[in-house]
Amino acid sequence: MTNMTGPGTDEGDFARALNQTAAAVNRTLNELLPTVPGPEGRVVDAMRYAALDGGKRLRPFLVCVSGDLFRVPRSQSLRAAAAMEMIHCYSLVHDDLPAMDDDDLRRGRPTVHKAYDEATAILAGDGLLTMAFEVLADPATHPDGSVRAALVTELARASGAAGMVGGQMIDLRAPDLELDEAGLIRLQGMKTGCLIASSCRFGAILGGGGPEALTALGAYGQAIGLAFQIADDVLDVEGSAGVTGKATGKDAAAGKATFVSRLGLEGAKSQAERLVEQAVDHVGIFGPAAEPLRQAARFTIRRRA
Amino acid sequence: MTNMTGPGTDEGDFARALNQTAAAVNRTLNELLPTVPGPEGRVVDAMRYAALDGGKRLRPFLVCVSGDLFRVPRSQSLRAAAAMEMIHCYSLVHDDLPAMDDDDLRRGRPTVHKAYDEATAILAGDGLLTMAFEVLADPATHPDGSVRAALVTELARASGAAGMVGGQMIDLRAPDLELDEAGLIRLQGMKTGCLIASSCRFGAILGGGGPEALTALGAYGQAIGLAFQIADDVLDVEGSAGVTGKATGKDAAAGKATFVSRLGLEGAKSQAERLVEQAVDHVGIFGPAAEPLRQAARFTIRRRA
Repeated sequence: MTNMTGPGTDEGDFARALNQTAAAVNRTLNELLPTVPGPEGRVVDAMRYAALDGGKRLRPFLVCVSGDLFRVPRSQSLRAAAAMEMIHCYSLVHDDLPAMDDDDLRRGRPTVHKAYDEATAILAGDGLLTMAFEVLADPATHPDGSVRAALVTELARASGAAGMVGGQMIDLRAPDLELDEAGLIRLQGMKTGCLIASSCRFGAILGGGGPEALTALGAYGQAIGLAFQIADDVLDVEGSAGVTGKATGKDAAAGKATFVSRLGLEGAKSQAERLVEQAVDHVGIFGPAAEPLRQAARFTIRRRA
Repeated sequence: MTNMTGPGTDEGDFARALNQTAAAVNRTLNELLPTVPGPEGRVVDAMRYAALDGGKRLRPFLVCVSGDLFRVPRSQSLRAAAAMEMIHCYSLVHDDLPAMDDDDLRRGRPTVHKAYDEATAILAGDGLLTMAFEVLADPATHPDGSVRAALVTELARASGAAGMVGGQMIDLRAPDLELDEAGLIRLQGMKTGCLIASSCRFGAILGGGGPEALTALGAYGQAIGLAFQIADDVLDVEGSAGVTGKATGKDAAAGKATFVSRLGLEGAKSQAERLVEQAVDHVGIFGPAAEPLRQAARFTIRRRA
């Protein structure tokens, strides 16, 4: 057997492409978030701390490879990808706050309110959320104003009360809700699925894709988003803080229903596999060009952290 | 002497116009924020509590009367006004949090984190911030995508780290900064002036106004924003909680420099008067049509709460 994560394999190709996109989006984020002098510099420092932290950058990767399907220049897709990542990072900063999930560690280092303070963390999240829309609305992201406005609409719907914010509200109430599987799927679809789906749809919006492409990419994104979350629940049981960089077993301890508690460990794993197959089917209409999306779908349940 | 606030006087006309616009923007906000079923409804309820609270709606008024200068249909300017008010209300919700200014009362009733809880207040602020951009990017706000994108850019710049968020960061650090008058002017320009200036610029953006109009309206807005803040500092000393609906004397107690502490009570009052005169001069280029803006400028220092 060859090393399945080495160079020359599908998984090796994918890991390399993911790392390359992460490096490129990190450069874009660094350019979009220059440090500033003056007393307000503290909030910009905290925004940089939150956004430039070396995550996997899965959402930016999805924006870029979806954009590749429509030959979107990387100069455009990387800006949209950076905006998407700003939203993701703001949500982590606010979710980690003491009044929310109360986490001290994120990706192995102190959360923003621990590294700075609570007020600065709230403002840094607000600043990143606001800047995401500023980046999308900038003519450098796309020359056509209606495309820029469509990106804003897409991101706002996915991340607002009907999407991510609403999902986080449900998640906070989850210990009292005794959600069944359908309720869990809806929660995760709002909390994480919407943003992943929008990442994929960003490529089509930038590239002028039609309704069929938008629907397929949205369905693909929701499927891998759910697979990703189920894999997270599995990691929460099987993983350890040393690997995942965060506390484990936390959801169960908080009395929240998880896919593992609802479906069992093996049931959760096979459900995630089925979702990955569905995701792969959704992007069949793009033919061989969708190979990076197929690799990303498989990655969501193979990752170890 | 006639009653200066009665009907038929400038001040009476202004109060009536302000109330009419407030009623109209309240209807628009109510339509844009329908209650939703399901467990996420709690955050929408909190967004409604924060946004539909009967403030003066000065920013929406400025959007509408600036739009009138360019014959912008009220159906458009009221949507932009509602988006602007969502940003203002989100900032109040987050500023009131225990980790920030820690206020229990706002306009005479419990703040959002008191009426709900801290986590819901954080999310409600995030939801309002996000929805503001969704409203601006919607074709119902303006048929031209590049105008919608320009509104997004304007609002994001005014409310982000280079504007309102940065101003709040400075304000939180103010007890340690010993700001002089120039520092205070910069702080207030960022914290409140930017958003008021953008409210005025919104009208010109919606109506296709040129650079001269945008500059004049921005300068007018910054001048009345600063006059408004100086008047606030004066009220903070002279007012009482029964009239202003919030605690008074708080800034001084927190060891923050205020315009009254820097300029003295009379010095602050005459500075506010000078700013109102400057504001009136800035909109001279619009002739008699700018009368509502002149009335609004005078109102900023005549109000009692």
